[in-house]
Amino acid sequence: MSTSQTIPARSSASAASPGAFDAEYDIVVVGGGGGGLPAALFARWLGNSVVVLEKAAELGGTARKAAFWYWVPNNKKMREIGRPDEKVDFLRYVARLSRPQNYDPENPRFGLSEWEYAMCEAIYESASPAAELLSERGALPYRHCAEVPDYWAELPEDKAPRGRVLLPEAACDSMSDGGQVAIRTLSAAAQRDGVDIRTSHRVQRVVRNRAGEVVGVEAATSEGTLIKMRARKAAIFATGGFTHNPELRRNFLHAPVYGGCAALTNEGDFVYIASAVGAQLRNMNYAWMCPVSLEKAIARTPDLSGMFSVAGDSMIWVDKRGYRVVNEKLAYNELAQIFFQWDAANAEYPYLVLIAIWDQRSQEHSASSEYGRLIVPAGTDDSHVIRGETWEQLEGAIATRLQRYSVVTGGLELSGDFLKNLKASVSRFNQFAKAGRDDDFRRGERQVEQLFNGAVKEEPGRTNLTMYPLSDHGPYYAALVSGGTLDTKGGPKTTVNGQVLDDLDIPIPGLYGVGNCVASPSGRAYWAGGATLGPILAFAYRAAHAADAEPVKQIDAIPELVAADSQSIQV
Amino acid sequence: MSTSQTIPARSSASAASPGAFDAEYDIVVVGGGGGGLPAALFARWLGNSVVVLEKAAELGGTARKAAFWYWVPNNKKMREIGRPDEKVDFLRYVARLSRPQNYDPENPRFGLSEWEYAMCEAIYESASPAAELLSERGALPYRHCAEVPDYWAELPEDKAPRGRVLLPEAACDSMSDGGQVAIRTLSAAAQRDGVDIRTSHRVQRVVRNRAGEVVGVEAATSEGTLIKMRARKAAIFATGGFTHNPELRRNFLHAPVYGGCAALTNEGDFVYIASAVGAQLRNMNYAWMCPVSLEKAIARTPDLSGMFSVAGDSMIWVDKRGYRVVNEKLAYNELAQIFFQWDAANAEYPYLVLIAIWDQRSQEHSASSEYGRLIVPAGTDDSHVIRGETWEQLEGAIATRLQRYSVVTGGLELSGDFLKNLKASVSRFNQFAKAGRDDDFRRGERQVEQLFNGAVKEEPGRTNLTMYPLSDHGPYYAALVSGGTLDTKGGPKTTVNGQVLDDLDIPIPGLYGVGNCVASPSGRAYWAGGATLGPILAFAYRAAHAADAEPVKQIDAIPELVAADSQSIQV
Repeated sequence: MSTSQTIPARSSASAASPGAFDAEYDIVVVGGGGGGLPAALFARWLGNSVVVLEKAAELGGTARKAAFWYWVPNNKKMREIGRPDEKVDFLRYVARLSRPQNYDPENPRFGLSEWEYAMCEAIYESASPAAELLSERGALPYRHCAEVPDYWAELPEDKAPRGRVLLPEAACDSMSDGGQVAIRTLSAAAQRDGVDIRTSHRVQRVVRNRAGEVVGVEAATSEGTLIKMRARKAAIFATGGFTHNPELRRNFLHAPVYGGCAALTNEGDFVYIASAVGAQLRNMNYAWMCPVSLEKAIARTPDLSGMFSVAGDSMIWVDKRGYRVVNEKLAYNELAQIFFQWDAANAEYPYLVLIAIWDQRSQEHSASSEYGRLIVPAGTDDSHVIRGETWEQLEGAIATRLQRYSVVTGGLELSGDFLKNLKASVSRFNQFAKAGRDDDFRRGERQVEQLFNGAVKEEPGRTNLTMYPLSDHGPYYAALVSGGTLDTKGGPKTTVNGQVLDDLDIPIPGLYGVGNCVASPSGRAYWAGGATLGPILAFAYRAAHAADAEPVKQIDAIPELVAADSQSIQV
Repeated sequence: MSTSQTIPARSSASAASPGAFDAEYDIVVVGGGGGGLPAALFARWLGNSVVVLEKAAELGGTARKAAFWYWVPNNKKMREIGRPDEKVDFLRYVARLSRPQNYDPENPRFGLSEWEYAMCEAIYESASPAAELLSERGALPYRHCAEVPDYWAELPEDKAPRGRVLLPEAACDSMSDGGQVAIRTLSAAAQRDGVDIRTSHRVQRVVRNRAGEVVGVEAATSEGTLIKMRARKAAIFATGGFTHNPELRRNFLHAPVYGGCAALTNEGDFVYIASAVGAQLRNMNYAWMCPVSLEKAIARTPDLSGMFSVAGDSMIWVDKRGYRVVNEKLAYNELAQIFFQWDAANAEYPYLVLIAIWDQRSQEHSASSEYGRLIVPAGTDDSHVIRGETWEQLEGAIATRLQRYSVVTGGLELSGDFLKNLKASVSRFNQFAKAGRDDDFRRGERQVEQLFNGAVKEEPGRTNLTMYPLSDHGPYYAALVSGGTLDTKGGPKTTVNGQVLDDLDIPIPGLYGVGNCVASPSGRAYWAGGATLGPILAFAYRAAHAADAEPVKQIDAIPELVAADSQSIQV
């Protein structure tokens, strides 16, 4: 898939004036992924005429690539099986993780800002109704993952550590195809219920009337035609983050990530479009993070998956010196932070690329082509795998491979004592593995680490399934790993109902945003599996209701070249 | 000083239309600090009528608080004393530090983006002419600091490690009052040469004509009057960063800093004003960083200084567990990074607050009220100092003090084994100090660490001036330290001549920005002492020349409510 061939280039985001419209709807939804399709359905079910404009040639966005867990606090199944999930406890948990440096259990908002707190309340209130409605209407039947733990299930603030995760009903046992299932059922419902879908339409800007209200959008098609689409009530953007916009990544994110596994069309379009009409940007410094294969991230392979699960028991990660520096089984968002630790004494990111190393045992028993794992089965694309019959051979092969990527890693190379240190690291790890206890990084002690351990060879009596000694003979395997995003999570600030806010916190009439294209209240945190999509469903639901209630906006009789932001405002 | 009493609140930044102007000038400069005053002078010397609008009641901004070193590559004195500073070497050095992960010595731009490279070239080309002109005209006579090293003087990429720093000529020996001297001489020159100065004028928005050109600004006075000022050629903003805007800090910076020592008026005004007319924001994730007294940063004391120099030899910093975790003498921008290291396994910033500890010796011989030091002389404000006759007493006093700040530190407190670990840390440090060699963090081995060591008691024969054993008896002293900014360094992207760029990299006619209110090409780096002000002078010089060459812009005959961004643009 080459986006440059099928998708028109971005052009000016300056708001257009209402000239002749090519079509009109009550509500125009921009983006046909995990936020847009639900928003369109919710709006349609309220009786609106709705169109979905999707930039790519097919629906699905990033969600289609995801496992599509969705995290729904106090969901119906939890209530049915008697798992209490009180609002105040939920809020305390998310506050503890979103702004740890501000967390104060005695504070009425637990240290969250007013906006963050209100947004988190909205998630608690609306994720479950949204999920239930989608299920009832057959758009997204689900099954309950009653025993899946939150990523921070051990925190004292987590009073409902298991049971918040839902999953598309028809997903396979490993759950990895949830996104494909969800996009299929959501799309079918949209078609069934009369949502118009137009793919290969890249929205370039909104259309505003003389009063400054958003009354439509202007989209470029792959043929280069410009289409003006009226939105009588509102336009709802759900266009994803800016993972594939290197310029925005470099200038906003807290860490220099190597791209990520969002849909390749996630280039931050809404940052430009909303900024042009005065939106304020928030949470621009953070992303949903994950480890990625360095090579696949750089190649921007369209099917790149985040490494949700680091496979293997006889497997370690080491740095360029040959040392272990992290618990390899940490939940992905946390694990990905290690790559960007700054060495202030040497002005470098010493862990920017780590080296995953495993033996034949893990190769045979832990290979999988799911969840972005590095240990892949025979017959699948293993171009990222480095091999050596001995440690010495492996070291040579790693050095050669690193050399190939030198220009994108600031010249990162193995230190002279790599081999010596690697052998010592393996020996030390092997002792930990035998004892079942990692004295350096406590590998395998958390629920989430066990959850994502993947398949390992059975070993009767073993207490820690995440570790096993690496073999004292080859062959050995390695792969280069770095940090990327699932997608970013900053963008225009919205109300709890998805209304985009201007620089004085006043809603821009008719303009809505949901999902990764707008600011998340989660700060840097990843609360749980599905903490992306659960809140997205909640906000899609709320935005659709608010948009439904919007008055029909007038378009100017004479399309003069005017805009509201040109008014002189007296203070 | 209370900003809320004397400075009007921010109001909408939406561009105003050209109604009746209260005054007109060729060039309107917004901000009367280290960027604005030079820009105004350069513009005036080219024959323009110029006004400076300053938000505060007095001129000077952050620069007045600074030592006002300015880093000028290939400056005249270097050339005179035969210190070669080739452009290509300069560019390699700044590229190595600004984007270490992209640095490639073989790449024609060394891994910098096209824009970053061009901006760095502009610094090399124009900092020296700017400095010379200011000196020749008596606005900023300087003395050359021939032996002051760059902060990364040891890097092989630094081919001119000493001699790039200039200093206001009349600054005292310790150089700490350079900013006051510079603002005095710059202000006097401005007055002498006919630059109009209006303080207590907070610019709220720009004024645009129908063609979308910036033709003036609108400012609120402390009395609440709105003043419209025409800029026939251009408006140049030099309004500083967003250090004192907690909302912007929280949503853009890579680290959760506790404010900083920029002028209290640096609230990110230009982010709002330029965004409202379609500017793109860049380098929003980074700041000029420095350690700060936690208590002073939280109190927002107007005279807060960055801790440019960490004083004392019998002095260490420890974390909440009582361990040393950093080389206390690292250059300030680098030292400040330690506070924000993320602990991904525990979801916290474990080093958010560190504890500086020293003994009577350092108290007696290293106290100073300059450069933001924690060890202050008797008779000065020492409310941040914690005391104990014994280690046990000191521990108790630290615990009590931390408790007071619990609500802003996420409940940070001493661990149960703090005292034991502290004693072990002191003992280990004392051995290093005796040997003159810090095996843990290499304290004192770099030129910049020696430069900023401050006064210490003389000890004949000592090889490492930065270390001396802490006494085995009290009294002992401590202070809480965290990370802050000198100021931020992100904002609208400009051309190499300071023209603010829209989202398609097209200059917004008539709108300029220089200094910390616009995007720096330095990424996260702090190249050297004065790497803030040297480049600022270069860009002030270039912006003034470009603004001078601008055509006079027409104001619309009939002040209709119109703006350029309302035009329908065909792609």
